[in-house]
Amino acid sequence: MVVVGIDPGLRITGFGVARPHNGRVQLLDCGYLRLPPAKSVTYRIGKFHEFLEGKVKQWGATDIAIETPFLGKNAQNFLKLGYLRGITHLVACRHALIVHEFSPCQVKRAVTGFGGAQKDQVARVIMQLFPRLGKPSKDDVTDAIAVTLAGVWRMRMAQRTLLPVAR
Amino acid sequence: MVVVGIDPGLRITGFGVARPHNGRVQLLDCGYLRLPPAKSVTYRIGKFHEFLEGKVKQWGATDIAIETPFLGKNAQNFLKLGYLRGITHLVACRHALIVHEFSPCQVKRAVTGFGGAQKDQVARVIMQLFPRLGKPSKDDVTDAIAVTLAGVWRMRMAQRTLLPVAR
Repeated sequence: MVVVGIDPGLRITGFGVARPHNGRVQLLDCGYLRLPPAKSVTYRIGKFHEFLEGKVKQWGATDIAIETPFLGKNAQNFLKLGYLRGITHLVACRHALIVHEFSPCQVKRAVTGFGGAQKDQVARVIMQLFPRLGKPSKDDVTDAIAVTLAGVWRMRMAQRTLLPVAR
Repeated sequence: MVVVGIDPGLRITGFGVARPHNGRVQLLDCGYLRLPPAKSVTYRIGKFHEFLEGKVKQWGATDIAIETPFLGKNAQNFLKLGYLRGITHLVACRHALIVHEFSPCQVKRAVTGFGGAQKDQVARVIMQLFPRLGKPSKDDVTDAIAVTLAGVWRMRMAQRTLLPVAR
């Protein structure tokens, strides 16, 4: 059971890879993909697909976790976030992965216990959980790790409810 | 030079395939793909990809034409149109196709000469151009043929400007 969590963007895509291990979460990989803004959308979509499929294969992922974006000021930018989500679903279809979607509030609640938490509170919890990680160089990486954690914990919750109740 | 034009949707995707031939437009194929609404988005995205790539290979497409959607009442439905556009760009990247985007107004102007034309005027022009076609059973097919024509005509215009001027 390995979750790839992503915070996709046509410029920067943050990612995290984690799995439950001995009752804790083990962070296997994290970082970001930078896409050249001077290149066409078609080119960048191709690179994003290659990258995501590469990470899925490398870590033998079983699940993908992704945050649901909300409409900002620019509808066409919002639409382009959809492009990357479409690619995410295609990779999930090809490799029989489950896609877990979370609202920003659900991600914050999963990580900090409070849905209205600030970005730096989320980052602080992540640094406490993974002290060897250091402060990620980009917010996109912190955001991706947060959604990855939400994915791992949701799966564990689902498993727990399947365990027989001790009497 | 073969254009695949699509009007993508997670329920119905209309498509047209056309090329310039002896100074006219030849419609090679048209129809629609129906995706089962009871199935997951992941499944439907996979089917859409398979279908679009199949049409591109079958007809040796060189270009894809697609209409730019505008934000309607439901932002999440708008985002999902982005999913299918992302897949369209991926197919374009894999098969080295050019993606042509048109606003609804540009498509109407290309087909009828008037950007504010009604849907039935667009349909009438298409039936006049291709009398053997009959009335397409779905608006999605008419819309897809319209954007396909816009794609073929844009390519011909681009070619014409490259011809040497007679003196």
